[in-house]
Formats: sequence, C-alpha cells, structure tokens
Amino acid sequence: MVASAFLPELWTEILVPVCAVIGIAFSLFQWFIVSRVRVTADQGASSSSGGSNNGKNGYGDYLIEEEEGLNEQSVVAKCAEIQTAISEGATSFLFTEYKYVGVFMVFFAAIIFVFLGSVEGFSTKNKPCTYDDTKTCKPALATAAFSTVAFVLGAVTSVLSGFLGMKIATYANARTTLEARKGVGKAFIVAFRSGAVMGFLLAASGLLVLYITINVFKIYYGDDWEGLFEAITGYGLGGSSMALFGRVGGGIYTKAADVGADLVGKIERNIPEDDPRNPAVIADNVGDNVGDIAGMGSDLFGSYAEASCAALVVASISSFGINHDFTAMLYPLLISSMGILVCLITTLFATDFFEIKAVKEIEPALKNQLIISTVIMTVGIAIVSWVGLPSSFTIFNFGTQKVVKNWQLFLCVCVGLWAGLIIGFVTEYYTSNAYSPVQDVADSCRTGAATNVIFGLALGYKSVIIPIFAIAASIFVSFSFAAMYGVAVAALGMLSTIATGLAIDAYGPISDNAGGIAEMAGMSHRIRERTDALDAAGNTTAAIGKGFAIGSAALVSLALFGAFVSRAGVHTVDVLTPKVIIGLLVGAMLPYWFSAMTMKSVGSAALKMVEEVRRQFNTIPGLMEGTAKPDYATCVKISTDASIKEMIPPGCLVMLTPLIVGFFFGVETLSGVLAGSLVSGVQIAISASNTGGAWDNAKKYIEAGVSEHAKSLGPKGSEPHKAAVIGDTIGDPLKDTSGPSLNILIKLMAVESLVFAPFFATHGGILFKYL
Amino acid sequence: MVASAFLPELWTEILVPVCAVIGIAFSLFQWFIVSRVRVTADQGASSSSGGSNNGKNGYGDYLIEEEEGLNEQSVVAKCAEIQTAISEGATSFLFTEYKYVGVFMVFFAAIIFVFLGSVEGFSTKNKPCTYDDTKTCKPALATAAFSTVAFVLGAVTSVLSGFLGMKIATYANARTTLEARKGVGKAFIVAFRSGAVMGFLLAASGLLVLYITINVFKIYYGDDWEGLFEAITGYGLGGSSMALFGRVGGGIYTKAADVGADLVGKIERNIPEDDPRNPAVIADNVGDNVGDIAGMGSDLFGSYAEASCAALVVASISSFGINHDFTAMLYPLLISSMGILVCLITTLFATDFFEIKAVKEIEPALKNQLIISTVIMTVGIAIVSWVGLPSSFTIFNFGTQKVVKNWQLFLCVCVGLWAGLIIGFVTEYYTSNAYSPVQDVADSCRTGAATNVIFGLALGYKSVIIPIFAIAASIFVSFSFAAMYGVAVAALGMLSTIATGLAIDAYGPISDNAGGIAEMAGMSHRIRERTDALDAAGNTTAAIGKGFAIGSAALVSLALFGAFVSRAGVHTVDVLTPKVIIGLLVGAMLPYWFSAMTMKSVGSAALKMVEEVRRQFNTIPGLMEGTAKPDYATCVKISTDASIKEMIPPGCLVMLTPLIVGFFFGVETLSGVLAGSLVSGVQIAISASNTGGAWDNAKKYIEAGVSEHAKSLGPKGSEPHKAAVIGDTIGDPLKDTSGPSLNILIKLMAVESLVFAPFFATHGGILFKYL
Repeated sequence: MVASAFLPELWTEILVPVCAVIGIAFSLFQWFIVSRVRVTADQGASSSSGGSNNGKNGYGDYLIEEEEGLNEQSVVAKCAEIQTAISEGATSFLFTEYKYVGVFMVFFAAIIFVFLGSVEGFSTKNKPCTYDDTKTCKPALATAAFSTVAFVLGAVTSVLSGFLGMKIATYANARTTLEARKGVGKAFIVAFRSGAVMGFLLAASGLLVLYITINVFKIYYGDDWEGLFEAITGYGLGGSSMALFGRVGGGIYTKAADVGADLVGKIERNIPEDDPRNPAVIADNVGDNVGDIAGMGSDLFGSYAEASCAALVVASISSFGINHDFTAMLYPLLISSMGILVCLITTLFATDFFEIKAVKEIEPALKNQLIISTVIMTVGIAIVSWVGLPSSFTIFNFGTQKVVKNWQLFLCVCVGLWAGLIIGFVTEYYTSNAYSPVQDVADSCRTGAATNVIFGLALGYKSVIIPIFAIAASIFVSFSFAAMYGVAVAALGMLSTIATGLAIDAYGPISDNAGGIAEMAGMSHRIRERTDALDAAGNTTAAIGKGFAIGSAALVSLALFGAFVSRAGVHTVDVLTPKVIIGLLVGAMLPYWFSAMTMKSVGSAALKMVEEVRRQFNTIPGLMEGTAKPDYATCVKISTDASIKEMIPPGCLVMLTPLIVGFFFGVETLSGVLAGSLVSGVQIAISASNTGGAWDNAKKYIEAGVSEHAKSLGPKGSEPHKAAVIGDTIGDPLKDTSGPSLNILIKLMAVESLVFAPFFATHGGILFKYL
Repeated sequence: MVASAFLPELWTEILVPVCAVIGIAFSLFQWFIVSRVRVTADQGASSSSGGSNNGKNGYGDYLIEEEEGLNEQSVVAKCAEIQTAISEGATSFLFTEYKYVGVFMVFFAAIIFVFLGSVEGFSTKNKPCTYDDTKTCKPALATAAFSTVAFVLGAVTSVLSGFLGMKIATYANARTTLEARKGVGKAFIVAFRSGAVMGFLLAASGLLVLYITINVFKIYYGDDWEGLFEAITGYGLGGSSMALFGRVGGGIYTKAADVGADLVGKIERNIPEDDPRNPAVIADNVGDNVGDIAGMGSDLFGSYAEASCAALVVASISSFGINHDFTAMLYPLLISSMGILVCLITTLFATDFFEIKAVKEIEPALKNQLIISTVIMTVGIAIVSWVGLPSSFTIFNFGTQKVVKNWQLFLCVCVGLWAGLIIGFVTEYYTSNAYSPVQDVADSCRTGAATNVIFGLALGYKSVIIPIFAIAASIFVSFSFAAMYGVAVAALGMLSTIATGLAIDAYGPISDNAGGIAEMAGMSHRIRERTDALDAAGNTTAAIGKGFAIGSAALVSLALFGAFVSRAGVHTVDVLTPKVIIGLLVGAMLPYWFSAMTMKSVGSAALKMVEEVRRQFNTIPGLMEGTAKPDYATCVKISTDASIKEMIPPGCLVMLTPLIVGFFFGVETLSGVLAGSLVSGVQIAISASNTGGAWDNAKKYIEAGVSEHAKSLGPKGSEPHKAAVIGDTIGDPLKDTSGPSLNILIKLMAVESLVFAPFFATHGGILFKYL
C-alpha cells in the first residue's frame, strides 16, 4: 500500500482557496494604490502626488529627474478624455467579439454534449470504468453534461480574465502618463503595479474557479475520480477556445490598426507615432488593450487551465486517484497556490524593496522579477512536494504504472520552472537592444529594408535553438521520471510564476498606451521619451512573456497529447506507420496554414485601414494642420469588422481539424497531427515573436540613439530609420498575431482531442473502417 | 515459390546501359545544335542563322517578330567577351570550392571506413547476414571499404554533374542572347535545348555510373546482395554530401552578389539590373551558374541517387533480393531508363513538334513539358511494372514480409509521379504572375515594402498546403501498398522525369544570364525585353523545379529513414517515448538553425559586397558615366571567399548531427531527429522557395506592365516598384540559398544515418548506456 501525503485533506481544502483569496486581495490592494493617481482635472496632479508621497512606495522624493508640467490642468483633462475613448473602444470591441464567439461557443458546447453523450448511446446507466473495469463509473452522458458545464465555465473565466485585464490596463494607461511627468521611476511603478493587478487577479481567479468546480463536481461524482477529472478537462478546452478567438481577433484588430496607422502616418505623412492627427490612432491604442492585454490574458489563463487539467486527468488514473489521496491529487493546485504567494513576495521587490531611479534600471528590474520568482519558487516547490506528496507513488504510463519518488516529481516541476527562466533570458538576449543580435539587425538597416528583413528573419530562426534544447531537456527529464504526469507538472512549474509573468507582460502594452496618450495629449517631448523608455523594456518583456507562453504551451500540449493517447486507448504512436506519418506531416503544415490566414488577414485589414486614413487626410481640410479632428470611429469600425470576420476561418481551422481528423481518420492519424503541429508550431511561434520583437527594438534603438553606433544610424527619418520602420511593420503581425496564436493552436488541438477522446475511440476513423 | 520477372536478366543487363547511352547521345546531339549558334565575331550571326534555317527545328521563317541588330559585329564580340568572363569566373569558383570540399570528402571517407570497419572490429571473416542469419555474408570491413568507394564515386559523379551543367549553361547563355535578336521563339529554343543537354547528361550519367558500380561490386559480393546494396548506399551519401556544399556554397555566392549588386545598383544608384557599370555584375552572373545550375544539378542528382539506393537496399532484403531476381531487383533502374526515353520524346514536343511564336506561349510550352512527360511516363511505368516485376512478391516491412502485387507497385510509382505534377502546378499557381496570388502581392506594394513582405510570407505559407496533402497522399498510398519500398519507388516516380525537370529548370538561369549579357553588351531594349520574358517564365520553372526537388526529397528521406530504421534494428519509433519526442522536437528545429546560418551568411556577404560596390562607385572616376571600367575581380573574390568560408558551419551542422546524435543518444533519438527534420524542413523549404519566386515575379509583373493593373503599379522606379524590389531582394536568399538547401538537409541526414546504421546499432547511444 502506498503512503499518502503528509498534508491532511482538510488543510488542502483550506489552503488552496485561502491562497487564491490572498492573491485576489493583493490584486485589489495594488489596484487601490494605482487608483490614487487621479485623472480628473479638477483635483489636479499635485494632490495625487501629495497623496502618495509617504514612505518607500515608489513615490520617494529623491528622484533626480525633473518634474514637469504638473500643473497643466488641461493636459489632465485631455488624458482623461483619451483614456475614456480608448476604454470605450476596447469595451465595445470586446462585447462585439464576445457576442460572435458566444454563438460559436453555444454551438460547440452542444457538439461536446452530443458527441460525448453518443459514446454510449446517451445511456443513463453506470458503466465499468475505462482504466479499471472492476469498478463502476458514472455514465458517459454524465461526463458529457459535466464536460459541457466545465467548458462553459472555462470560457466564461477566460472572458472575465481578458475583460478585467483590459479594464485594468485602460484604467492604468493615463495614470502612467501622468506619473511620467514626475519621472520615469514613478511611471514605471504605476505601470508595473497595474500589470500586477492583472497578473494576480487572473492567476488567483483561475485557481479559485477550478478549485470550486472540482469540489462541486465531486458532489455528484463521489469516488468516481476518473469521470470527475475527465469532465474537468472541459474547463481547459473552454478556456483555450476562448483564448484562441481572443488572440486571433484581438491580434488582427491591433495590428490592422497599428500597421495601417504607421504606413500612412509614419511613412507617408512623416508624422510621429500616436499623433492625434492620425485617424487610426485611437484604434491602434484600443488594439493594444484588446490584443496584447485581453488576448494574452486569455491565452495564459488557457495554458494554466490546460496544464492543470492535463496533470489532474493523468493523476486520476495514477495511485493518487486510485487511492483517493486528495492532497496528492490536488498537487497541481498546491503548486499554483504556492506560486501566488511566491509572486506576491517577488512583486514587492519591484514595488517596495527597490526603486527605479534611471532608465537603464528598468530592464534589470523586470529581469530580476524573473530571477527572484524562480529562485523563491524552487524552495516553494520543494515545500509543496514534501508536504503534498507521498514519498513514493505510482503514475500511469500508457497502460502500466510507474513508481515515482516525491523528489523526482520535485525535479520535474523545477526543470520546467528553470527552463522557463532560460527561455526568458534567451528571448531577452535576442530581442533587447542592449545586446549584439538586435544591434546587428539595426546595423543592417544601413543597406536598407531588405537586409534588415534578412537579418531579422535569421535572428528569429537562430533564437529558436536554445529554447528548443531547454524544452527538450525538460521533456526528457520529466518524461523519464514521471511520464506524462511529469511533463504536465513541468508545464505547471513553468507557469507557476504566472502572476509575475503576466505582470511584466501587461506592463508593456500599458506603457505603450501611456506613450500614445502623452503624444495625443500634446505633452512635452521629455515625457514621451520617458514612456518610450518604459515601452522599449516592454517590448522585451512582451517577447519574454510570449517565450513563456510558447514554452509552456509545448509542454502542456505534450501532456495533453499523452493524456489523449491514454484515453483513446492508443499504446504506441509509431512514426513508421502510414497513418501516423501522414498525420505528422499534415500536422506540421497546420501552423503554416494558420499563419498564412492570420498574416493575410492583417495585411488585408491594414490595406483597408490605409485607404481610410489616406482618404481622411485627403478629404478633411485642416487635418494635417491640426485644426480639424479626424474621424476616429470609422477606423475603429474597420478594425472591428475585419477582426470579427477574419477570426472565423483560422478559428475554424483549429477547432475543426481534430474533429475531422479524429472522426474520419481515427486516433492514430490524430496523434500524428498533434505531434506534428506541436514540434513544428513551437518553432514558428518562437521565431515569429522574436523576429518581431527584435525589429521593434532595432527601430527603438535607432530612435533612442543612446550609443555612438545608434547615433550613426539615426536620427528619426534617416534612411536606416526608414528601413527599420519597415521591419517593425512586418514584425507586427508576426509577433502579435500569428506567433502568439500558434501556441494556442498546438494546445487547443491537444485539449480538444483529449475531451473528444472517448468519442473518437468509439466512433472515430470511419474512413479507414469502410475502406 | 514466388515467380520471377517476365524480362530476362540478360535483357535487363542490356536495356539499362543502352537507355543511358541513348540519353547521353541525345544530350550531345542537342549540344551540337546549340553549338551552331556562333559567338565568334568574324563569322557573324547571319551564318549561324543560315546554317539552321532548314525545317521545323524552331528556326522557321514565319516568326512575326522583327529581327534586329543582326549585323552588329561589335555586339557579338562583346557577348563573347562577357561569356568568357562568366565562364572563367564560374570555373575558377567551382575549382576552389571543390578543392576545399575535396579535403572534407577525404576526411569523411576516412570516417566512413573507420566507423563501419569498427562494427566488427575490422575482422576480415565472413559473418552471418543481418536479416537472415542462416546465410553467410561478407565481412563488415568489406562493406566499409565498398561503401567508401561508392561514397567517392557518388561525390565525383555529383561534381561532374554540377561542373558539366555549369559548362553547358555558360556555353548557352551568350548564344541565347544572340538568338534573341531574331525573336523570342529562337532564343527560347536555344535556352531550352541547352537545359535539355544538362538534363539528359545528368540523368543518363547518374544511371550509368550506378549501373556500372552495381555490376562491378557484384563481382566481389556475388550472392551477398544484402551487403552489396548496403555498400551501394554510399553512392547516395557521396552524391548528396557534395550537393549540400554545392547548394550552400553556390547559393551564398550567387545571392551575396545578387543582393549586393541590387542594393547599390538598383536601389541607390538607380541603374538597371546587370548594368556593366555595376562592379558586382559579373559575380552576379557567375553566381547564377554556380548556384542555380551547378548546385541544382548536384542536388537533383543526389535525390535520384538516394531514391535509387533507398529502393535497392529495401529490395535486397525483400523477395527480389532473397530470390536473386536481378530484373526485379533493378526495377528502380528500369524506371529511370524508361524515364530517359519518355523525356526524350517529351523534349521533341518543345523543340520540334511545336514552335513558340509569342511571349505568352513560353509558360504554357514549359508547363506542357510537365504534363506530356507525366502522361507518357504513366504508360512507361505500366510497361516496366508489367515486364520488370513478378505478378506477386514480398517486400520487407520492419521485420515482416508483406505480399505485394505488381499493379500495386505500379500505383506506388504513379502516385509519386502525379503528386510531382500536382506540386508543380501548385507551385506555378503561386509563383507565376499570370495568377491572382502573385498579382495580390504586387498590388500590396502600393502601400509599401512592409505589406509586400507580409503578403509574400503569407503566400509562401499558404502554398505549402496542397503540396503537403499531395505528399501525404502519396506516402499513404505507397506506404500502405508496399511499405518503405513503395515510398522509395514513389520518390523515383516523381524523379523519373528528371531529365525534363532539369531541362526546364536549367532553362531559367540560362535565360537570366542571357538577359544579363544583353544588358552588358549594350544591346537594344527590345532584346532585353525578350530575354526578360524568357526569364519570367524561368522564375516559375525554377520554383517548380524546387517544388519537385522538395517533394521528392520528402519521399526519399522517408524511404531512407525507413531503411535506416530497419538496418538499425528498431521496430517502432514511438512518439510516446522521451527519447523519440525530444529527437522529434530538436529535429524540427534543425531547419531553422540551418536557415539562420545560411540567411545570415548571405546577409553578411551582401553587406561586404555593398561596401565594395559603393567604394568603387565613389573612388573610380568616370564609373557612373561609363567611361571607366569597374574592378569586377574584387567582387568575384568577395563572393568566393564568403561562400567558401560560410558554407562550412551549415555543412558541418548537417553532416555531424546524425553522427553526434547516433553516437551519443542512439538510434531512437536519431529516428526522432530524422522524422522531425523531415516534417518541419519540407514546409520551410516549400514556403521559402515559393515566397521568393512570388516576390521575384511580382517585381517582374510591375516592370513588364502588361495589364492595366500592372501599369497602375509601375513603371520601374515608382514607389510600388521600389517596394517590389525590396521584396525580391529578401526573397533571394530564401529561394536560392536556404530553401533549396533544406531538402538536401533532410535527405542527407537520412542517407548518412542509413550508411552509419550498422555502426550506431553496435556502438551508438553511449550517453544513455552509461547514465
């Protein structure tokens, strides 16, 4: 008999929700601090400054930077106005998006119920369990119903994650601008705190909803944990489906506006980025919030939900589930709970223990967040593994049970956690303009846009190497120690510091928006420089965030794939069979198909946007002179319409492929497709997001002109700078639409296959059956 | 007892070499016709015209185009001079390249001998056979020695293929220019005939050398066919290793020169392409011959050699080999022999049965070549399968023998052949400016280079879809019918019309060079327009050729992979094992690593070239005015040095990866790496070459301005045209360096693994053994 975990079940039942609540409370506290920066003109900026001038909350009085423009009330009013416009635009878009996606979700929920219910012909009788037929499990119809409910819950949580993130970001952007008047350090703190609000809210609410769902479902399922956690996987599917549409729709929205605004504004009309005369400028700033914030929030929530589901479903057929050891069963949730506490401490390092005094301290401060959270989390994982796991247990391994020690599982989680850090650092190296790769790309602008693109693409390809070795190493270690459960907890390890990851990730678009607001409100050049400095660091952290998202997606997807294969009753996925190899080949093609769709969508929408912006410049008298206001609403509408229309085909490609392949070609071919899209997609995703990040920062490097080398390439408007702007524009859809959507592609197809596995195992592969 | 083939062994022994000799004779005859166009000034152009004015040899007298400049003797002299410069430059580069690669080859030959010899500790005693241990086979040391000899033979044949191709192309380029004075039809015929010289010479000599090698080796091996054909695989490895360096070195050479010449000439100085004032112009034209001609010749020869080896090695352990049915054993060579005859008839359709009267007939004429050869070859395969195979036989299928009928094998070859045609058509659709995809890309130039690049990348990604389905379908059919032998003969089916494929492929660079010579010799604008029309069709055929090369590489690589797995004693390659999945992931990464190296190499070399060209324009007085001559030699040297230096790292990556993985991680991980690089590499290769081809033709579409739409984007020098030039420049390394090298990567790693399989099976995987 295997021993059970040291931590009693009751404690687990208490600790997990308590940690989630602490996370939410901390998030609200950060929000409270941010809210003290006032954006109402009558109170003025001085009161907001006065109100926070106590202690070391990032509001110290020894910042050497000169304060300026604090008393211009009109500027504050202007900021408030712009903020409202952005917030309303974003809210309106998200509601439109959710309305369309909602229809799809209802339809898909029905498919889940019908397909899964049909596995046993909608019988309401209990049946022998799948993995242990000596026991009795709940009917397939129950799993169908509960899966559908979990799916809806996941989708709703994902919607909330994205929506709240957007609300926070649009709340924070103008506040960051206003604080930038007092110095870069204060602006940084506001942007970072706002990111933390989002990070903790998402991490904690994702955990809480999952915890509650498990406990509620358990009332019905009782001791049938196999069925319970099979139904729970619907939560991951719901979260990820929503994330797909969020990422794709938001990505097309933001990049159509961004590319369109840049092509006419920066290149043709030679006006600065975010200039209020540009009709697409509001759409561009809305886009940052619906794409980078809401989309990314949904995405990482999806990863987290799927990683948890993958671990839980494998655990339920391992000794944890068989022996009904609830604490060990909830090990994945304990890891996430610990993660919230660790991230809380980590956040204090950025906001309270140290202060940013100069521009060059921003990037190290963000980087330290990664290091600190990883180091502390290593200790945290050790504690959780020690108290939350029996010293020895067995893990389901494709038909057999494999004996695993608790220290081995500790290593599995750690290897994922540290691989994440390595991926983060490599991403930083390849996308930050402090290092030679981006500087080389900037240098290649000397000979024009063509060499810039060639060097940028080469950089992206090269940046794949180390992350892939890091992922491969974590897979090897975790797989060897604890089969698919090991891979799943490695993914959870990588995602355990999600709150910090999201904080530094959300920080980027908030700073970007802050810069936009400064420009639009007509604030001084120096303030724009400060927000640009924040934004440059934000490009790098965005790339790091994407690196994490992709790395974890690879692990999650593999774990889900393993769970799918187990559930579908496949014992080997042999490349040397025709069914698997064609799946592998076609699967590896899917990311290209998907990218072709999304890139083309951005391109076409951007063309429409360009035409509209040109039309306004040509037909509205006084627009270039700044005496007439552009028609922002039409540009917002173009982005909205394009993204709603264009997100359907790629969405369908991802959602329907597993169903079509599984139903017509069967589980072997589907296994091949999943493996193929995993190994191919992860490469394109990494290279696309790093190439885009590098181009963006190469452009910023030339603009900032901080070194002799950079000065020789600039200033703004020089030929090398123009070449850099072209690279930046090309990178936009790569890094913000195609790239980040790909990691959803690989994990969504895997989780969908897992949810539908009972159906495929029963009714799948009809083409080969009748041929 | 299984029946043997209808065709007696003696007939087979006669038919194969006879067909090869017919091919060589036909090639020489075409060469003779081309040689009648004189490039010596004293004899003049009129005599060459008069000499061929009889009959329907493409020299009919009813061409409506106006003849012009026929009597300018100085132009002929100028052409002769330029031709000599290009030919000497190309010869000199190839000799340098072969010298360096030769050292590597000797070193690698030693590795083959030592590693394979060490399998049984250099024992000279006979041993039980690998697949049938009741029989006695020759010692491993003999296989080591013969493999090494076959390796050297393959390398030498590959060198000859590339070198002769280059010689023919540099012989034909000026002749095409001179014939262009008489009309586009005559110029087409010369270019096409010259392509045919190369196509038939390569196909026939590859077949002949392989045939002779088998027969010579058989003297020693006698009835040990297992050992005989294992040793023969060295031929494929030699051919492909040489091809790798040829493609990479030649690709870097040509694109460094091309990009460098364009960046300064077309973009900065606003002088036409191939203008003699451009110092890099000779290097650019040399590059076409060493990269596109010599590199591609070696590449397709390598594919052909490997496909034959893969089929032979599997056949040797199937009933053909076990029963010593020599005719059936040589079925792959019979297919190739038939291919030569079919291509011969096909060629006559282009040169003798029909004539080109207008520009718009060029592309259809080339396309018809593909259709005609495929249709006739289908009949040819039926005949060969009927007389060359027993009606029923068994094929080795990973440890078991699978019963196969001759009509099934016929279908295997056909499915490959027709998949090739589909890939060709899809490639044409996506890269020819007669269709909407390229026109859309051209249209996107309206909004600048950024949208051009976004649309071009999206086009490349999209163009992958149908070819992948075609490849997947042929794999499924051939694999299901006849396991790995089926896949190998499907690859041979795709390559069976290699002579025609090479002819239309070589036609492109010849036309490109002809245009360059016309420009440099100061010939009239109309002649340049005619060669441009030939060249535009050539871009499409080059893309089609690359499509074939990639498609066949995928099939060949899979067949070799299967043969490797059999030889290494692996029975399943299960994705659900840590060793395989990490191999798969890392394997899928290799094409990116490789592309990063080659793209960066081209970029860096182009930067050096740009500096040199700028320096010459700035320091040589009278260069821009055309009164002083540029220093061509320095530019040639920059390309040469860069390509020699830069081809080493990517070459080592490809050649060493299988050795390192196999030795340290063992055959399972190596299997994963091979499968991963196959499924990932084929996608990048297709998308890279189609994206590049599309950009090139989008630019040509704007320049030619044949439709209202095209005119609205042009003329040369307009903003959209400038954007198109940037796209074209980016596409250069994609389509001519990275893309086509990738198909060598996937098949070379596979054939290398196969050759070293006995070594890995004995000594491989030391890391896991000692951990």
